[in-house]
Amino acid sequence: MPSYTAPVKDMQFVLHDLLKVSQSDIPGYGDLEADFTSAVLEEAGKITSEVLAPLNVVGDKEGCVLENGVVRVPTGFQEAFDQVREGGWTGLDLPEEYGGQGMPYVMGIAVGEMFSSANQAFSMYQGLTHGAASAILAHGTDAQKTTYLPKMVSCEWTGTMNLTEPHCGTDLGLMRTKAVPQDDGSYKISGQKIFISAGEHEMADNIIHLVLAKIPGGPEGIKGVSLFIVPKFIVNEDGTPGARNGVSCGALEEKMGIHGNSTCVMNYDEATGYLLGDAHKGMRAMFTMMNEARIGVGMQGLTQAEAAYQNAVIYAKDRLQGRDVTGVKNPDGPADPLIVHPDIRRNLMDQKSFTEGARAFILWSSTLIDQAHRSGDKDADGLISLLTPVIKGFLTDEGYDMTVQAQQVYGGHGYIEEWGMSQFTRDARIAMIYEGANGVQALDLVGRKLAADGGKHVMAFFEMVKTFLKENDGNEALKKDFLDPLKAASKDLQAAGMYFMQNGMKNPNNALSGSYDFMHLFGHVCLGLMWAKMAKVSMEALENGAEDATFYETKITTGRFYMARRLPATAMHLARINSGADTVMALDAANF
Amino acid sequence: MPSYTAPVKDMQFVLHDLLKVSQSDIPGYGDLEADFTSAVLEEAGKITSEVLAPLNVVGDKEGCVLENGVVRVPTGFQEAFDQVREGGWTGLDLPEEYGGQGMPYVMGIAVGEMFSSANQAFSMYQGLTHGAASAILAHGTDAQKTTYLPKMVSCEWTGTMNLTEPHCGTDLGLMRTKAVPQDDGSYKISGQKIFISAGEHEMADNIIHLVLAKIPGGPEGIKGVSLFIVPKFIVNEDGTPGARNGVSCGALEEKMGIHGNSTCVMNYDEATGYLLGDAHKGMRAMFTMMNEARIGVGMQGLTQAEAAYQNAVIYAKDRLQGRDVTGVKNPDGPADPLIVHPDIRRNLMDQKSFTEGARAFILWSSTLIDQAHRSGDKDADGLISLLTPVIKGFLTDEGYDMTVQAQQVYGGHGYIEEWGMSQFTRDARIAMIYEGANGVQALDLVGRKLAADGGKHVMAFFEMVKTFLKENDGNEALKKDFLDPLKAASKDLQAAGMYFMQNGMKNPNNALSGSYDFMHLFGHVCLGLMWAKMAKVSMEALENGAEDATFYETKITTGRFYMARRLPATAMHLARINSGADTVMALDAANF
Repeated sequence: MPSYTAPVKDMQFVLHDLLKVSQSDIPGYGDLEADFTSAVLEEAGKITSEVLAPLNVVGDKEGCVLENGVVRVPTGFQEAFDQVREGGWTGLDLPEEYGGQGMPYVMGIAVGEMFSSANQAFSMYQGLTHGAASAILAHGTDAQKTTYLPKMVSCEWTGTMNLTEPHCGTDLGLMRTKAVPQDDGSYKISGQKIFISAGEHEMADNIIHLVLAKIPGGPEGIKGVSLFIVPKFIVNEDGTPGARNGVSCGALEEKMGIHGNSTCVMNYDEATGYLLGDAHKGMRAMFTMMNEARIGVGMQGLTQAEAAYQNAVIYAKDRLQGRDVTGVKNPDGPADPLIVHPDIRRNLMDQKSFTEGARAFILWSSTLIDQAHRSGDKDADGLISLLTPVIKGFLTDEGYDMTVQAQQVYGGHGYIEEWGMSQFTRDARIAMIYEGANGVQALDLVGRKLAADGGKHVMAFFEMVKTFLKENDGNEALKKDFLDPLKAASKDLQAAGMYFMQNGMKNPNNALSGSYDFMHLFGHVCLGLMWAKMAKVSMEALENGAEDATFYETKITTGRFYMARRLPATAMHLARINSGADTVMALDAANF
Repeated sequence: MPSYTAPVKDMQFVLHDLLKVSQSDIPGYGDLEADFTSAVLEEAGKITSEVLAPLNVVGDKEGCVLENGVVRVPTGFQEAFDQVREGGWTGLDLPEEYGGQGMPYVMGIAVGEMFSSANQAFSMYQGLTHGAASAILAHGTDAQKTTYLPKMVSCEWTGTMNLTEPHCGTDLGLMRTKAVPQDDGSYKISGQKIFISAGEHEMADNIIHLVLAKIPGGPEGIKGVSLFIVPKFIVNEDGTPGARNGVSCGALEEKMGIHGNSTCVMNYDEATGYLLGDAHKGMRAMFTMMNEARIGVGMQGLTQAEAAYQNAVIYAKDRLQGRDVTGVKNPDGPADPLIVHPDIRRNLMDQKSFTEGARAFILWSSTLIDQAHRSGDKDADGLISLLTPVIKGFLTDEGYDMTVQAQQVYGGHGYIEEWGMSQFTRDARIAMIYEGANGVQALDLVGRKLAADGGKHVMAFFEMVKTFLKENDGNEALKKDFLDPLKAASKDLQAAGMYFMQNGMKNPNNALSGSYDFMHLFGHVCLGLMWAKMAKVSMEALENGAEDATFYETKITTGRFYMARRLPATAMHLARINSGADTVMALDAANF
């Protein structure tokens, strides 16, 4: 069975060496001293590796079962959920006034990475609740906040988001679910929603569904969509769960992975709902949840890659097969361990350089969110808005590929469910799809985010890279292995942007045909930037006589690998982009 | 449920327009007139799409079950297997003297593609039998041939290959299975083999296991391995199956995919075996099977990509979601079909240009095998030996990626088992692993095949590309879109080979660290060459006033897409290769 060890040391490196969080002037960051974050991360590391990770395979094998309208979660999930609640892990970065711990978002993400690495399907019950709570926090009335938030912050009640219907996913304007206004100000919600993660289960006393629906007579299409709170049990005056509402799980989906999470078809039959935010402004409210969810999903790409990588390394050190071509390394054994072989190392270094780069990227991005929310920094808000589709699309695509590579290290055993490597791949696959399929992320990036505010945010990004390069001009230790490749990659990204500007005007398809490659190109530049920065602080640490020299040297080597072996992808993406829409759009649909 | 339509027209294009098989002087090729191959392919198309494809999902859902030593295959498999046998599909390219139809290998591969696209797990029962029969044909005594081949050609008896043991896969020198010589010239085989595809089932009257084992007292390691025929039922003098042999299925593996195939743990307990070929020369005999199997597995990459692509196209035309950004295309519907969107097309064109290029590559490669076997052409033999790891490694990696892309077209539905797209991905995954994991293919390519016969065969490959470029010098229609990119890609491949020569001498790790990238670089050049040739013959067909102009125009556009959008990967692979072993080998194992 696979194991999981929380990468506390690497997180501490990113938080303190790289991001220097406790020196930041973002409100709340002053508390993030190394010993404090270490204590939190160590504790989270314990519960995730000891309690949640062992349940990962159980969840995959047993899945969820629907019987007489009741959904049974896998063995051990209820007890583990109780432990998570009791440990106070559910409201880490939610406001203290509703029972949370009020820590910055960056800490929520660091801890969230561990939960998801240990057990993605399990962590979703909590993750969806967090997203739903955030939406209520942002758009709810005081009464709604008081009614729902304390219970959701503690996960006594869980939450869901209901967008998709059988005939519409991305194109929510086609939605059919109706919300009919009642005299008491509530609505009667009727319709069917599909793919509802954590839609029904018995682990919580109530489930608070956030449901998109149309109020009859409202504007056509997406502009007529509103968001509603639809509790499984209607909440009594005293705040306790009361009568069963007209919402039920019609079926559980049989999925490729995340079997431990109950993915439901939800039927709403004149269920009582309460408007959340303004009528017909449901998409805006939902996007509060969606943007947060997209970062969380991007993180899932990292988390499955990390868990798979850890196990691949263990196997590569343990499994004896073949001999080192440059000389026997394990003369007392019948063969050398796999890890002596160059192609196994190439494979593992791909993984290692991805996960560590992705971790830095996502934690740095989280500080942008804190900066936007806690400091009201509009530039940070614009930048994270630009980067969100990159985080979601690039990290889940690459993260998935890494789980496939980790599986490969096991040879035939990687294909056998008993070893658990297939599960990482199957679980990771969903992240490329949900919260907006990655093609939609690419469209969002190129079609919307690039030009937002007159292209201000992408210019700010380029400026940031340029500033870093300038500041380190003359740093010979960084130049060849880090600064030069970063400069070249960043130039590719700018050239791609330029191509879009020049050719997208003539025909938007010239830009949209290259959107997916642009998303990946952008992602590589982000990871390249992170690696250059990590190399820099590691070199500084070594110069300052850091105790754990090996850690910093390893970091620099891993970064050099990324720059030499992964970053050259940018030129390929640029070449693809520069070929434009011509061959992409030429065929009649009939000729596919 | 997914459907499958055999790509007869495209196969005919490759066989006749591109390869001009009936004009070849390879013995037997004269019979391959267009109407003959069309008749065979149309018939194969029927049984695969009508009988085998509908059982694909059934096989995945039901899997195989082991009860009291008996393995039950999924519902319908037995009847379908009977139909396949009755139709004479099992010995298409096996010798007539043993009941086969004696057609060239290229026809076996064309038909094999259909079988595997329709139902990979099912087609393996037959495929393994074919491989085992080929090994007996090449290495068996006359008596062995007479005893086993007629029944195996007709698939009344099926076959298996037994290499892997729990502690050794790639490194077969570690093998523990023993073969103790008996006075009557037979051997007693004892040991455990794992991952045995089609290892046990009741669809055939007998199962002929080919088993690698060591004769005690023989040479150490891989040089002491011999190959044995171990029938499930010992064959009576009269050729009928007799007493049960000491071989049994200990367990079925739970796998990520190919559930319809029984992957067995096989226990040999003093089972009677007969030496096949020379003692201690088992690996050589096994490689007869392995090389054929590797081409067949490479083909599986194509087959799952093809099946997944076909369904993705149907969905993309059918599913209405969003509007064409350049103007509404389906004004009477609530939305436009997915296929109007540039990124969906980019995705589908990736798939289309891969499958058609891969089909040409594998059919052309099959003609090399025929040339080697039927014409005794040593150069063809050397070239296909060089290309085998490329076919296996590159086509299965890329084929897998394409199934993942096809799944993505479906959005959330791609993750739901009911739609069948997950199965293509899960089934395709195994092809990257079995018959030598793709890392081992890369090692074989760079560590063995490149330098074989003084590098003669890779030089012949470059010469072939050069000749094609030279012959078409001045062809302006081909130049920019096809010849120039092919030239550039081929130059990248040569530069990579040069890097290995110059740096691999100093340290073999410099070559081996780039082996995986080299395999992909090589694969892209092969597909680029195929596309350039296909474009050329398509242009000629158009000039000659071909009836179906749209078919040829589509071919040219698809080729242009490949050259513009896929081939630029070669420069990236070269950059990675040129970075050498440095960052790959630098870390101590402890620092992963």
